[in-house]
Amino acid sequence: LSRQHRAPLYEALLQHLKKKPLSFHVPGHKMGEGFDIQAHACYSSILRLDQTEIEGLDDLHSPHGPIDQAQRLAAEFIGAEKTYFLVNGSTGGNLAMIQTVCGRGDVVIVQRNAHKSIIHGLILAGARPVYLAPRIDPETGIAAGVDGFTIEKAMRHYPEAKAVVVTSPNYYGMGSDLKKIQAAAHHAGIPLLVDEAHGAHYGIHAKYPRSAIQQGADIAVQSTHKMGISMTMGAWMHVQGQLIDKERLEWLLTVYQSSSPSYPIMASIDLSRRFFYEQGYAFLQRGWEMANRFRQAFQADEHYYIPSPERENHAYTSIDPLKLTIHIRKSLTGFMLKKHLQEKGMYMELADLHHVLAVLGPGTKKEEIDLLIHQLAVLSKEAKHSCEKENPRFIANNILYKETFQAVHEPLDITRYKGKERMPLKQANGRISGEMIIPYPPGIPILHVGERWTPELVEQVLQLKEQGARFHGVADSTLEKVTVLT
Amino acid sequence: LSRQHRAPLYEALLQHLKKKPLSFHVPGHKMGEGFDIQAHACYSSILRLDQTEIEGLDDLHSPHGPIDQAQRLAAEFIGAEKTYFLVNGSTGGNLAMIQTVCGRGDVVIVQRNAHKSIIHGLILAGARPVYLAPRIDPETGIAAGVDGFTIEKAMRHYPEAKAVVVTSPNYYGMGSDLKKIQAAAHHAGIPLLVDEAHGAHYGIHAKYPRSAIQQGADIAVQSTHKMGISMTMGAWMHVQGQLIDKERLEWLLTVYQSSSPSYPIMASIDLSRRFFYEQGYAFLQRGWEMANRFRQAFQADEHYYIPSPERENHAYTSIDPLKLTIHIRKSLTGFMLKKHLQEKGMYMELADLHHVLAVLGPGTKKEEIDLLIHQLAVLSKEAKHSCEKENPRFIANNILYKETFQAVHEPLDITRYKGKERMPLKQANGRISGEMIIPYPPGIPILHVGERWTPELVEQVLQLKEQGARFHGVADSTLEKVTVLT
Repeated sequence: LSRQHRAPLYEALLQHLKKKPLSFHVPGHKMGEGFDIQAHACYSSILRLDQTEIEGLDDLHSPHGPIDQAQRLAAEFIGAEKTYFLVNGSTGGNLAMIQTVCGRGDVVIVQRNAHKSIIHGLILAGARPVYLAPRIDPETGIAAGVDGFTIEKAMRHYPEAKAVVVTSPNYYGMGSDLKKIQAAAHHAGIPLLVDEAHGAHYGIHAKYPRSAIQQGADIAVQSTHKMGISMTMGAWMHVQGQLIDKERLEWLLTVYQSSSPSYPIMASIDLSRRFFYEQGYAFLQRGWEMANRFRQAFQADEHYYIPSPERENHAYTSIDPLKLTIHIRKSLTGFMLKKHLQEKGMYMELADLHHVLAVLGPGTKKEEIDLLIHQLAVLSKEAKHSCEKENPRFIANNILYKETFQAVHEPLDITRYKGKERMPLKQANGRISGEMIIPYPPGIPILHVGERWTPELVEQVLQLKEQGARFHGVADSTLEKVTVLT
Repeated sequence: LSRQHRAPLYEALLQHLKKKPLSFHVPGHKMGEGFDIQAHACYSSILRLDQTEIEGLDDLHSPHGPIDQAQRLAAEFIGAEKTYFLVNGSTGGNLAMIQTVCGRGDVVIVQRNAHKSIIHGLILAGARPVYLAPRIDPETGIAAGVDGFTIEKAMRHYPEAKAVVVTSPNYYGMGSDLKKIQAAAHHAGIPLLVDEAHGAHYGIHAKYPRSAIQQGADIAVQSTHKMGISMTMGAWMHVQGQLIDKERLEWLLTVYQSSSPSYPIMASIDLSRRFFYEQGYAFLQRGWEMANRFRQAFQADEHYYIPSPERENHAYTSIDPLKLTIHIRKSLTGFMLKKHLQEKGMYMELADLHHVLAVLGPGTKKEEIDLLIHQLAVLSKEAKHSCEKENPRFIANNILYKETFQAVHEPLDITRYKGKERMPLKQANGRISGEMIIPYPPGIPILHVGERWTPELVEQVLQLKEQGARFHGVADSTLEKVTVLT
């Protein structure tokens, strides 16, 4: 497949420059000729590629030239029927895929710990979600995946469902058995949509999970900027099968993405595909070795526990080797650890009460892993002499999600509401939430924007507060007051 | 205002690099350390700025650091109450602003020749637009602006309207009297939203039009990549006054824009503001002189007519000096002229049947204008010896828009439809259009996606075809068949 060594869009941009073109079109900087003088050194080489839909450079919203060729090479590489480049991140792809499969009042089965763009897509569609409770990893308290059994059960209760939407892997690299979920969805004749934003590198190397498309998903959205080499906001969407109306999907992609898409970003998606083809295996082998080295260093550590592919459990059926979730057993919070590491020049992906997440990528070097191992060991030794309080593994698991699924009986139609107001939590019963209420741990939204407060939910939140849970996504983190729609 | 010489976001990115940070976060290229080798020369300097929401670099969706500071400097410079950086182009801003002011079934007064993102915003909201017919420029046949009188008339008929939405300037730089429109809207207590994508450079230099915000608009969206120096997809939105629910607007901006916004693009918006402050006047003076030189060269030309600020008429009350609309009186089509110029290395913004549009910007040089003048003169001389057929100035003006406004009596709710089919135009009566029908000239959509075909519309289109109009936006350009929703 020697054509996979090409990068049609990137090459078309270089070809255009060879003509020494005069630009009487946007952008205004005219290939960097007019730009900030101080910032010129950083920007000048990329601004030469910052073009628009002129002759020879095709049009993302109606591709017939190099963008079309680049997308076809991507589909061929992935094994999808069709691939679309995304310039508004996985966000734009998620919004478009949701509205492709449902409209006002339609029931959609959806994993509750989804990215906000999935929830936003459901709100924009006016759909009626049936939320699936994710499994909780007993070792870390992290909300992980859903299983085929739960999906089947939900579909028996809601045979009118139009689609199943899952997130796999989650932020921490924990994934679900998509093959089983796909079988359940297709048995009912409905499509499986996968937010695979964190899994752009899947399906290439045997030590890594298979991709959603390989497992039969109808649509998968992947951020090529996260685990590939694209510029940030570069992503792609893969589609296969007869259950997706591609004309509707293509129209929605036009709706949610700029009519002036960035050529540097699009070309970097093209280059990311070539990178995966040419160097993906080597990068993933190197990454696996580095990650392994890291995990072995803390295998029996009294302070840190690192979820690993060897220790998969019922909460997830696969884990991304490149996601190093550092679960802190005692003495330190994730926030403190992150700050300590930062002081040593090491910047982490995220921290929460009990975790710090480190993400490896194509640009990670072995020396950096060694520095991280060393620094964590030093901090562990220092912490020994301070407080010895055990961190709770997780709380609230018994309160949240007694039910494996939960239906929202009215469409999420926020357009009916005119504004927001704050009111005491205890009086919120019956009101529509204007904010997401995310108790942490385990980080699963107990209420999304557009959902109604019930006496049970108010009671749940009060209990969670008592147990010491913190709340994300809210205006008032004490939750004395909550924001509702008016 | 010495702080306007700063560029807080760009400076924060440089500051971060000085720490020689190790990246255990996305993006995967890790400041360009892992990237395509061939493309490294083009990308490496910008990839060092391609960061994520780590300590010190703030968060677009909840700004409290350098992004907040950069947005405040922008608002101060513009004279707005609040400015939001946009990374999904003006498209993302337009979608958010429309849904801020209306919900399902709400009436909105909107200029018909709007960018598709405005129409998409109305569809997503499920609003009921009242479309205002634009004035047609008698010299070129181009659909220009709307006037205050039409707005007033529409508002008397639809006192329940929630907002007025206009596009000013249009693609060709023709603008409306926003002061009058604003007065009419505010008299009725409703906000004026302006798609000012093409006017990011307004309000700085006296020879240029005033900005929408200066004329009292409640929201204005501007593409800083078009007439400023931002990277493509960089734009901003300005807001003022009490008629806008900023909390709702901010939530919608989060909905329509990537949760991983591009730092190189955001920093380039920051730099564009500094450029406007430091060099904007000089650039606009230079641009005005170049454009003047161009217009004078063709002042009494028998082949070309160039709309100019001195020749404003009832169809528009202002014109952007930097938009050189080359109206071709005879012999050549715009498509032919564009192709000829391209062969000489000159790339134009757009061509249509009778026009070619050249856009000047901060990066345009005087020599380039001279080359364009020279080449147009040569082509004019050559064309003299060929066909002498006069181009019609415009057609169809009497058929289209006998009415100054036209209401859509049902919400544009495309989510009710499952797919599309093609059918003969003559049988389309009563069906909902699945495509935009844009007769050209003058380029005003006769039917938007989601609007219903009526016997009158079918008849209009048949007449337009007879007169030789061409149709944009359609799957079958002969319009034997049209696409409808099923």
